[in-house]
Amino acid sequence: MIRVDVELPGHAAYPVVIGAGALDALRAHAGERPFGIVDERVFELHGALAAPLFALAAVPAGEAAKDWGTLELALAAMAQHGLDRGSSALAFGGGATLDVGGLAASLYMRGIRVVYGPTTLLAMVDASVGGKTAINIAQGKNLVGTFHQPSAVLADTRTLATLPDEEWRSGLGEVVKAALVENEELLALVERNAAALAARELAAVELVIAECVRSKARIVASDEREGGPRKALNLGHTFAHAFEKVAGFGSIPHGVAVACGLALALEASERAGLLQDRGLRARIDALLRALQLPCSPGELRMRHGALPAAELLAAMRHDKKASAGRPTFVLPRAAGSLELAATLDDATLLALLA
Amino acid sequence: MIRVDVELPGHAAYPVVIGAGALDALRAHAGERPFGIVDERVFELHGALAAPLFALAAVPAGEAAKDWGTLELALAAMAQHGLDRGSSALAFGGGATLDVGGLAASLYMRGIRVVYGPTTLLAMVDASVGGKTAINIAQGKNLVGTFHQPSAVLADTRTLATLPDEEWRSGLGEVVKAALVENEELLALVERNAAALAARELAAVELVIAECVRSKARIVASDEREGGPRKALNLGHTFAHAFEKVAGFGSIPHGVAVACGLALALEASERAGLLQDRGLRARIDALLRALQLPCSPGELRMRHGALPAAELLAAMRHDKKASAGRPTFVLPRAAGSLELAATLDDATLLALLA
Repeated sequence: MIRVDVELPGHAAYPVVIGAGALDALRAHAGERPFGIVDERVFELHGALAAPLFALAAVPAGEAAKDWGTLELALAAMAQHGLDRGSSALAFGGGATLDVGGLAASLYMRGIRVVYGPTTLLAMVDASVGGKTAINIAQGKNLVGTFHQPSAVLADTRTLATLPDEEWRSGLGEVVKAALVENEELLALVERNAAALAARELAAVELVIAECVRSKARIVASDEREGGPRKALNLGHTFAHAFEKVAGFGSIPHGVAVACGLALALEASERAGLLQDRGLRARIDALLRALQLPCSPGELRMRHGALPAAELLAAMRHDKKASAGRPTFVLPRAAGSLELAATLDDATLLALLA
Repeated sequence: MIRVDVELPGHAAYPVVIGAGALDALRAHAGERPFGIVDERVFELHGALAAPLFALAAVPAGEAAKDWGTLELALAAMAQHGLDRGSSALAFGGGATLDVGGLAASLYMRGIRVVYGPTTLLAMVDASVGGKTAINIAQGKNLVGTFHQPSAVLADTRTLATLPDEEWRSGLGEVVKAALVENEELLALVERNAAALAARELAAVELVIAECVRSKARIVASDEREGGPRKALNLGHTFAHAFEKVAGFGSIPHGVAVACGLALALEASERAGLLQDRGLRARIDALLRALQLPCSPGELRMRHGALPAAELLAAMRHDKKASAGRPTFVLPRAAGSLELAATLDDATLLALLA
């Protein structure tokens, strides 16, 4: 079991506990009667790990939970079960469940305590730290949400046993992003452990999750509301969101889209003359391949269909990170050194996305 | 024009501007293209005062706007009109419009800037300071919401000209509460100006609004999340919410219910042996009468029907301020001196509510 403490200015510090058995500490963090907001499929497979739940709202598995209807049902259930300001919730599932569960907890009586129990690699390395919550609306992904810090994150790696391979790879996509954002040291650690990560060896996985969490916690602590340095975490994401949107949300796993976005960000950085570490593109391509992740739009298209470049471009213009209709990009100069608000002209974008 | 600056720890200070013409400063606070979330009736009557709005979501007049449907429509409109993280919104209407508009602004892309343009006396003295936003759900009032501070409050008293008399009295109910919470000095100021307030004389009204805002700002600054001193603002409200709930939300104006709640809180305080200022009950009764406000459940019932005591009691047990099913009450010892978490036994409550 590894414990990482997340300290954000103006918030109580909270622990991220990573390992088989992390959920055994649920009572200690959420009291005797936590209310569950639980992915219905996760509950079938791993409900026994969250035994102290006194009542719950079962939400649709995965991204389908991030809508108004699920949010309304969760909040109605919280009220029907008599939760008060002193109650705690457990959001138990993948990133989507944490997003909608965290949003529900942040809205109920203007905010009650929430413990996150991430059950996917992606959620363990990424969604469980940072305090972003959200649902999707017809006009775009994550357009409605809050900032609300959990009171603890219990990343119980027993839940990873049932994770489908494609979801596993999706988590690894965010691992590579985290390494590239952090520094050479973390990138080298991930490279050394690439085979073990691909083979789902838990000792390597827990170590890498902990380092990704430590990195993200440092970045979020410096910039909770994404005014500056936190933008680094969006590396690869302007591309990724466009792929996800054009393919139809939920059809390309998020971290898989991010992996391709990382490769494109490196190519864009090279074209723009920003890339200082000349060997980095080849290294990241090799790492993505070792982890069975796509490193070009072509590879994405083989699995997920057409993804026309013009549609991708249009999607980027409506991205949440766009300013006055111009999409912005995080571009790497080297591991740990990033340009946070680059713009790219349409010709370059169309060439990259071809 | 009177300006009061509200300073909350951890937030940028913001101004509350009170007077005829306050909205003329909208551009200065919300930029060239503010998006409006506007009470449809207010927009008909006073839309010209908010001329710089480039687009808007018209929401149903009054409390009917505080529901999921209106919130969804407002957020969809914000996205359709292409608002980004740098956009600003104007919530323009009474307390309900500020509540739902503030909530929409706090959720859109996890929070954009919002300027409040309160158009009722109640909203000017109460809802526009403190950063609470909310909608109602079937299970209770204000059960879903956030804390989100506005970037300015423009209380343009020109909008008060069209306020119905009953809404005017409702605002005065919160004025009396604010005075009783603050101190002897503010209470005496309100007493001296009672006739002018009842006659809607703007000079007196603006002065009293400013003092109420100053008082509330001080209290909220000391306790943004209602852990302690802010509970004082709930004086009269456990009773008031029960009246409103049993009568059907929207049928008794909030501040009218609060007025009756204040009279009951004083009576309860006297029965419990807490009331130190022996003359206070008679003074508040006289003040409420001078302002044409009810000072007993009997007077409320004459206008609003049965309000059975047993139903009122049941409503209190489900109040947001209840802890483990026991309603709590703020009880005055004297002006400015309050017991913040009193409990009352059922027999006492039934006697008070009879």
